[in-house]
Amino acid sequence: MEKIQFQCDYNEGCAPQIMQRLVETNLEQNIGYGEDPHCEHARELIRKACEAPDADVHFLVGGTQANATVISSILRPYQGAIAATTGHIAVHETGAIEHSGHKVLTLPATNGKIHAKQIEQCLMCHYHEDGPEHAVQPGMVYISYPTEYGTLYSKQELMDIHNVCRQYQIPLFVDGARLGYGLASKESDITMPELAKMADVFYLGGTKQGALFGEAVVITNPALKKDFRYFIKQGGGMLAKGRLLGIQYEELMQNDLYLSLARHANEQAERIQQALMQKGYKMAVPSPTNQQFFILPNDHLKKLEEKYVITVWEHTDADHTTVRFCTSWATKKENVDKLIEDIKRI
Amino acid sequence: MEKIQFQCDYNEGCAPQIMQRLVETNLEQNIGYGEDPHCEHARELIRKACEAPDADVHFLVGGTQANATVISSILRPYQGAIAATTGHIAVHETGAIEHSGHKVLTLPATNGKIHAKQIEQCLMCHYHEDGPEHAVQPGMVYISYPTEYGTLYSKQELMDIHNVCRQYQIPLFVDGARLGYGLASKESDITMPELAKMADVFYLGGTKQGALFGEAVVITNPALKKDFRYFIKQGGGMLAKGRLLGIQYEELMQNDLYLSLARHANEQAERIQQALMQKGYKMAVPSPTNQQFFILPNDHLKKLEEKYVITVWEHTDADHTTVRFCTSWATKKENVDKLIEDIKRI
Amino acid sequence: MEKIQFQCDYNEGCAPQIMQRLVETNLEQNIGYGEDPHCEHARELIRKACEAPDADVHFLVGGTQANATVISSILRPYQGAIAATTGHIAVHETGAIEHSGHKVLTLPATNGKIHAKQIEQCLMCHYHEDGPEHAVQPGMVYISYPTEYGTLYSKQELMDIHNVCRQYQIPLFVDGARLGYGLASKESDITMPELAKMADVFYLGGTKQGALFGEAVVITNPALKKDFRYFIKQGGGMLAKGRLLGIQYEELMQNDLYLSLARHANEQAERIQQALMQKGYKMAVPSPTNQQFFILPNDHLKKLEEKYVITVWEHTDADHTTVRFCTSWATKKENVDKLIEDIKRI
Amino acid sequence: MEKIQFQCDYNEGCAPQIMQRLVETNLEQNIGYGEDPHCEHARELIRKACEAPDADVHFLVGGTQANATVISSILRPYQGAIAATTGHIAVHETGAIEHSGHKVLTLPATNGKIHAKQIEQCLMCHYHEDGPEHAVQPGMVYISYPTEYGTLYSKQELMDIHNVCRQYQIPLFVDGARLGYGLASKESDITMPELAKMADVFYLGGTKQGALFGEAVVITNPALKKDFRYFIKQGGGMLAKGRLLGIQYEELMQNDLYLSLARHANEQAERIQQALMQKGYKMAVPSPTNQQFFILPNDHLKKLEEKYVITVWEHTDADHTTVRFCTSWATKKENVDKLIEDIKRI
Repeated sequence: MEKIQFQCDYNEGCAPQIMQRLVETNLEQNIGYGEDPHCEHARELIRKACEAPDADVHFLVGGTQANATVISSILRPYQGAIAATTGHIAVHETGAIEHSGHKVLTLPATNGKIHAKQIEQCLMCHYHEDGPEHAVQPGMVYISYPTEYGTLYSKQELMDIHNVCRQYQIPLFVDGARLGYGLASKESDITMPELAKMADVFYLGGTKQGALFGEAVVITNPALKKDFRYFIKQGGGMLAKGRLLGIQYEELMQNDLYLSLARHANEQAERIQQALMQKGYKMAVPSPTNQQFFILPNDHLKKLEEKYVITVWEHTDADHTTVRFCTSWATKKENVDKLIEDIKRI
Repeated sequence: MEKIQFQCDYNEGCAPQIMQRLVETNLEQNIGYGEDPHCEHARELIRKACEAPDADVHFLVGGTQANATVISSILRPYQGAIAATTGHIAVHETGAIEHSGHKVLTLPATNGKIHAKQIEQCLMCHYHEDGPEHAVQPGMVYISYPTEYGTLYSKQELMDIHNVCRQYQIPLFVDGARLGYGLASKESDITMPELAKMADVFYLGGTKQGALFGEAVVITNPALKKDFRYFIKQGGGMLAKGRLLGIQYEELMQNDLYLSLARHANEQAERIQQALMQKGYKMAVPSPTNQQFFILPNDHLKKLEEKYVITVWEHTDADHTTVRFCTSWATKKENVDKLIEDIKRI
Repeated sequence: MEKIQFQCDYNEGCAPQIMQRLVETNLEQNIGYGEDPHCEHARELIRKACEAPDADVHFLVGGTQANATVISSILRPYQGAIAATTGHIAVHETGAIEHSGHKVLTLPATNGKIHAKQIEQCLMCHYHEDGPEHAVQPGMVYISYPTEYGTLYSKQELMDIHNVCRQYQIPLFVDGARLGYGLASKESDITMPELAKMADVFYLGGTKQGALFGEAVVITNPALKKDFRYFIKQGGGMLAKGRLLGIQYEELMQNDLYLSLARHANEQAERIQQALMQKGYKMAVPSPTNQQFFILPNDHLKKLEEKYVITVWEHTDADHTTVRFCTSWATKKENVDKLIEDIKRI
Repeated sequence: MEKIQFQCDYNEGCAPQIMQRLVETNLEQNIGYGEDPHCEHARELIRKACEAPDADVHFLVGGTQANATVISSILRPYQGAIAATTGHIAVHETGAIEHSGHKVLTLPATNGKIHAKQIEQCLMCHYHEDGPEHAVQPGMVYISYPTEYGTLYSKQELMDIHNVCRQYQIPLFVDGARLGYGLASKESDITMPELAKMADVFYLGGTKQGALFGEAVVITNPALKKDFRYFIKQGGGMLAKGRLLGIQYEELMQNDLYLSLARHANEQAERIQQALMQKGYKMAVPSPTNQQFFILPNDHLKKLEEKYVITVWEHTDADHTTVRFCTSWATKKENVDKLIEDIKRI
């Protein structure tokens, strides 16, 4: 019997509505490289959803590519990106940022988050130093919403970070690989237009949220718009059949699909969270989104692994393991039922 | 009325067989990053087709990405890639190769091709110079099959290039973005296994040959295999839902689909070629594959452009334009009929 | 007996006046990294000589370093530098420019020079192309004064290039590794202040013109000044004992030393030129500066090589070789006398 | 009255013996780029001092340049260098390592040192992870001898690090910008030949130890020797008048000059250390070399700063500052006498 996967949010293909549109449009003839009517329409829908009529929208294939492309478009060669030590660009991208010549300037994270005060401190330090040119100049701030640990910044926290960035005149980039799960969370106190106002550039992840692949980069700061397509092409991110990205985002941005898929995932995650808490397991990080981090006794984990695939995050101590349960738009309710049943039964 | 496009070979989505498989497998749960059973199976099929049981096969999303990833995996920082002045990496990739730190060492091309003698000359020059370390060291040879102009190297020409590379111990990389159109051409005198023996690394393009996207890199030289996945990930080319590439290549490599799609395109291109020659237009490059380059009087071109989209390649003189007619696996016979009729009628 | 070297302009140490100042100041205590009073004074002298009171002046150790640092400070990642095919950055720097991520966009040179029309053509081509973002964007112009072949641009030619650059809003960078030899030439029709007005950034070479080492980069365009010291440090070019550069340039910029050393070299070069022409040898390039390129019969060359070291530039044909005779501030008149005698005698 | 500087070890020019040799050889004619007889002789002397007859020796101008050149010659693009969080490459080089595409993988330092166990842990972690290719691969170890804090590794500690490197087949690179101060320290238990055996590559710093400038890179691991001159040239580090480096190292390596200059500096540092301890100030780091780190009350510091320049290292708390006193080969005994007197008197 095949195991049920709660391993990540990219185990399946795409939302059926999207697949259907790909089938319907398959033999249309379209111009390449994202200049077709589908992309144009999708851009318009995204601008509307962000209430950012002047924003530039670009479609990229994946998250590492989106991060590397955006960051290398912002920084000058001697600048680095401030990020959490646990940030995706700091640990999971094989040094893609360094490959483009830039240091990731890491700050200690709390549940995946960094705070305005830390950022300010880092910036002040740099500029008050004697001979600042002997160190990498902080040139931007990178955060994720939600973070790698599924946690969310509050509106106030974001606004504080935004303000520090304004004060030091450096852009704020929000990695939104899982943006929908964040915005659709019951604990989120921000909207997409609010995010679009606070970030200079961010993206609406598709890969982990119902699309086959794709990330929609939204640039609201006019200073960052120039020649962005050159960066995409040079970075190997300009999809020949760009229409595939346009078609997928057209679908995602209509009928509330983007957020409703995310809401479903969050609900299933919450059900798992409650089951794990009732069982008395310790929550490793308090996440209100589709990723749940818990510390399980090793023998219990072993039992669960007979039927489920779960991500091992860390070997906590000799007898315990921190694991991640991940749901997605594709997670079946009945599979969560089974999992809950089995958690109770251990 | 919408114009019929003979503009490029990526105007449509994908071959219906492939789309169907994507639909059928959509809700399967698979592990990410190309380590799923579909990718494994596709790799096996490719190794078989290449008669290269020990080859490593990796799937990438697009051509520029494939070129940049392969080249940066081969070269040391002070080395460059020998290529034709008209080579894709020399002119159409926004300096992706230079972005990874390497010079493209261009040689004058004849109909898109470079020759073994030129390559040998370039290598000899470098090593006979006094203080060779003041110049970029040629570290590999890059050619395309077919070339940017649709032309083909003969088996003997390839073997000569292969031998120069062996002599100077540098790898030969064959860009196969349109490999199928080449191998399926009536004028080709090589097979895929023969190519696999002569190249140290090459790829079977999917994007332009029936897939939604995808390029299958085949590494036959053991010295080039090590840690290639690090390069893919660092370059932003590791697709989260790698299964999409596996599924598409599974289909392409079965039932002769890859070559039969290409054969169809070549046949339609040949029909267009004959019509253009009968009309008396001058062939710009003698291409036996899916791209046809002809020199048209500007007023004739204008007439054709009322109903068709054709690529303007070069403004030849005040009254003439060099254009490219491009067919693909998706080109409809009846559209070619119409085009031929209209050419006759001008 | 040791051979006399006419091989290059960096065979000796430095002008005796400079060496004396280095000795005198040796045990002074100075702050590091170019922030000492000697550097400050030297900067002031250079600004005065350039009649550019607002220019930024930075000292670097060598030419390749100066070129790479300046160019990487100007270009955005997807941009390249327009240069002559024979330009130093195109052929003699082991791809240092590509190493920093940028393509050198070469134009065919005439006696080492490129012309405004060519540059304009290259820029127009790029921006008129469909989808310019698929190619490297020309982001600056690089020329040398004098060129690699010792030739000089006229004031009009420089002004034309300057104007094209202004029109397309890209900077003009003048490599002045041998600037003094150019300005001191009888055929030069420009002055240092005029050059400083036409170039956005340029440098006064020291290594080849009387210093032990050193290049003084002058940035007149305010847009290019920001954070240049970060570039120097990151590129490994920030000399700990920066005072060494300051002291040398203090000396060079006083008492007309810089130009008078160059004048001497040019005079000796002219004497050699005349001797070679009187002998009937063919001039390869008409150079009015310290490098002389002539085509010699191989047996004559062999004879000369018994007593002199001369640079072989190119094997012209089976019986002839193009060679370079190079003089410098250090060339002894009596050694030139001997050489002329020997040329006559062959 | 001018202040006396204890700020760094590059406040003065060079040892008089060296200056004299530069004067004597000034008008010699020599071939460029480090291929002259002085460089050859200096290489021979260094090989002898290291008892490494097969080592390759290359001369570079400065420390950041030496670090960046060596590291980029060792690592493949997806690899990083393990270093202390306080390592020079991690904090004081404006991201020169990242500029060449590589991440610095930092480990928490104890008094500037990292330990074999930490390194082993880091390497194990990487290779035991699922999907190691999503993270930067540790490709070498970088340490300094002495460290940034003047501390020394014991022979045993070095051997342990050496052994971990061997086990994982990655090179060990020892930054020796202040190597002499380390080897000449009373607390050092290793010799230059022993270091040469334990390191795969290291350098003998000149800039901070009696030369005007210069670092002599010694490569003992044959696998790291290939084409190193290409790296030097590409990195802008190939000095045209390479003889300057040769001449300086000829002098340094004769008559025990290198170590005797260092011994003098260490002795003066020890005298300062004792005075500070007798005064009751807290030592911040126990350093047996030419850098002394102490925590001073702010008002005491202010008093001292009236007559001396001392480096402020860190604002320890509201009332205290950590400072560095630095001696060198050039530190005058009588200036130390004065300083000690003034310390006592505060």
